[in-house]
Parts: sequence; structure tokens; C-alpha cells
Amino acid sequence: MQQRLDDFTPTGRTKVKRAPDRGHYDRETVYEILDAGLMCHVGYVIDGHPYVTPTAYWRMGNRVYWHGSSASKMLRHLKTGPRVCFTVALMDGLVLARSAFHTSVNYRSVMAFGTAEPVAEEAEKLARLEAMMERIVPGRWPDLRPVTKQELKATTVVSLKLEEVAAKVRRGPPIDDAEDMDLDVWAGVVPLGYAFAGPEDDPQLKTGVTKPENLSKIRIG
Amino acid sequence: MQQRLDDFTPTGRTKVKRAPDRGHYDRETVYEILDAGLMCHVGYVIDGHPYVTPTAYWRMGNRVYWHGSSASKMLRHLKTGPRVCFTVALMDGLVLARSAFHTSVNYRSVMAFGTAEPVAEEAEKLARLEAMMERIVPGRWPDLRPVTKQELKATTVVSLKLEEVAAKVRRGPPIDDAEDMDLDVWAGVVPLGYAFAGPEDDPQLKTGVTKPENLSKIRIG
Repeated sequence: MQQRLDDFTPTGRTKVKRAPDRGHYDRETVYEILDAGLMCHVGYVIDGHPYVTPTAYWRMGNRVYWHGSSASKMLRHLKTGPRVCFTVALMDGLVLARSAFHTSVNYRSVMAFGTAEPVAEEAEKLARLEAMMERIVPGRWPDLRPVTKQELKATTVVSLKLEEVAAKVRRGPPIDDAEDMDLDVWAGVVPLGYAFAGPEDDPQLKTGVTKPENLSKIRIG
Repeated sequence: MQQRLDDFTPTGRTKVKRAPDRGHYDRETVYEILDAGLMCHVGYVIDGHPYVTPTAYWRMGNRVYWHGSSASKMLRHLKTGPRVCFTVALMDGLVLARSAFHTSVNYRSVMAFGTAEPVAEEAEKLARLEAMMERIVPGRWPDLRPVTKQELKATTVVSLKLEEVAAKVRRGPPIDDAEDMDLDVWAGVVPLGYAFAGPEDDPQLKTGVTKPENLSKIRIG
């Protein structure tokens, strides 16, 4: 029998207070949202000033990872192990109410607080990069030219353990005031999501190389 | 003759250093990206800790605005006029190179630093909310039930003047190493963007009310 993972414990930072029904603290919900997104926004503080950097991320177990050039300002800072706020937000629809006040957006979001930790060990770093590729295009990793020692050195991978975490989700139609329901105003939801256009060959693609089937396995949102 | 607006002046925080060709400091590029996006991520610092809150925003002239409940933790904090980092990022495609190292994402992003300022005056606040609605669904504002005094009071609108700002853009195919070009690996771009599904009527929509034509004017991304 599979054991159900414990929920995250809400803290002063993560507890959703104003619309408490939108707050979720179970791992299933948090992991589902994290596995649907591809881009996070990482917040950190340098000399008292806030920075927010958008970057690709992926999840493995109870950690999220992101990476980049070892020369990146963000990653050089994060290697020192500072506090971060890791946020993922997916817009799912425009919620058009009968008043501006109740107009809203449907979304799924996750906010996680903690300390960024660099992945120091080479083999672990390589395994994490393989997981990244698996997230982007399942099955693509074995087709690629192998990562070199120099590339591995030039790449910084950091992770954040998921401990102080909450998801916040808004779904469904607008919630209008009772006295507005009889107005002749259209109300409803305009669903919104990521869509892919057909893959475009690199103009320098080697003659005879065709699109791999795994491109159809890409999922975002 | 229309005067060309001055470029933004890069600072230590906004100058794009590692891939300088991706950095843009002209208002046309910055405004175009800001006008394409709908969701920003606002970074701020409370008690030395970073927070990143996703929220809808809109641009008017040389300012960006966002809003929410006056009871929101973020907005109560921002009313005190702290430093913020305002980031917008749009993913435009997956850049699939012949190596993991050169695998990338096409994107358009804007990062702006400054001090959040609340919109205090009622008439101005109302005009800003009208601009927000115009951004979401052009032409919808006059159809809505007018904003009440209580709603205006319960809503906080803040703005950020665009001064310390840069855009960062990656476009085009993968840039592989010369020695990898002959590999039998497919490389190219999988374009990615927001798509709308057909609007869904509110289940409680008044009989006889039809979808307005302006729903076709919604543009995001």
C-alpha cells in the first residue's frame, strides 16, 4: 500500500488568508502544478533589494531545481545559500464578471520559501540535467551529444527543498453580487492556456534528419 | 513630428551582461512586451525575506499598475512605498539544440526596479481600473455595473514608474557548437504561446444575454 505523503504545514508566510478556500497544502496539488509549469520566478535579496528572475525549473521528488551559466549573477548569488521565494503561476482563464470588482483570473500557483542549495557533485549535477531534459522533451536525452566536463563546470544547478510551500488555485465561473445577476451583461470564463505551433527545423539542420516522435510528448500548462 | 522617447539608461542592476545582444533598453521594445503580457511577478522584501507575488498588471504611459484587495498582504506592504522588482516574462518557444548545454527557451522579458506608489485619489483610481479592464477586454468597461464607492475603497491600486528598466529577449534557432552540426540529432524550435478556448457562459447567465463581440479582441502574449 502506498503511503500518503504528509501535507505541508501552513506558516505565517504560506497560509492563504483572504480567500482561504483557494489555499492548498497537500503534496498532490503542489506537485501537479509544479509538474505542469516550466517557468518559475525566483525572488532573492541582494543588499536589501529585491530581485525576481524568470527561469526554467523542474521537480524531482520533494525538490525543485533550476540552472544556468555559472557566470550568472543570480546563480553566483544563490550559491551562497540565501533565502529565496520560488513562485510558479499558470493562468487558466479570464473570469469576466458583471462588475469590474468581481472580474478575476483563473490560475494555479505555488509559492515556496527556503534556502537555495547548489548541486556540487558532478554525477548528481548530470542526473539533474537529464531530469531537466526529460521534463522538456521526454525521451530526448539519449539522442543528444553527451555533456562535456567543461559544460558541466560552466553550469550551475541549484535546488530548493519543498518545505514551506502552498498552492493557490482559483477555478470556475465569476462570483457576482446577488443584485447584479439580473443585469444584461455577459459573464463567464475565457479559458486560456499554452499551445504549441508545429516544430520549426533549425535552418542548418542536417539533410535527412527528421522530427522525432517525442516532440508530441511535450506538455506545458 | 513625433519625438522619439529616450532610451532607458542601463544600470548595474539592469544591464544584461552575459548575453549582451539579448538586452534592450528602448521604450518601444519594453512597452511592446509589457503590452503583450497580462501577469507580472512582483518581488519585495519583508523583514529581509524575499516574496514574489504573481498578479495581473497593465501599462499606462510610462507606468505599470497592479491592484487587489486593500486587505492583501502584498498591497498593504507596498502601500508603505518599498523597493520592488517587477518582472514580466513570456515564453515563446522551446529551443532544442543538439546538446543539453545549448538547449534553451525563446522568451521576451522585462525587469523593472523602483518604488511602488499607491494611487490615492478616487477619480484616478477609477480611471486606472478602467484602463485595466480595457487591457483585459477592450470595450467592456461601459457594459459593466459601475464601481461603487465601497468597492473603490476596498481596492488598492499601486504603480511603478518605469525608470530602471531593461528588456531581455531570446529569439531564433538553437546556437550549436560547430562540431555538433553534423550530428544526426533533430534541432529546432517548438513555438509556444497562449491560446484561448471558446468563452464559457456563466452557468447563471441571464436568459437571452449573448457573448459580446469584444471577446474576440482579447490579446495575450
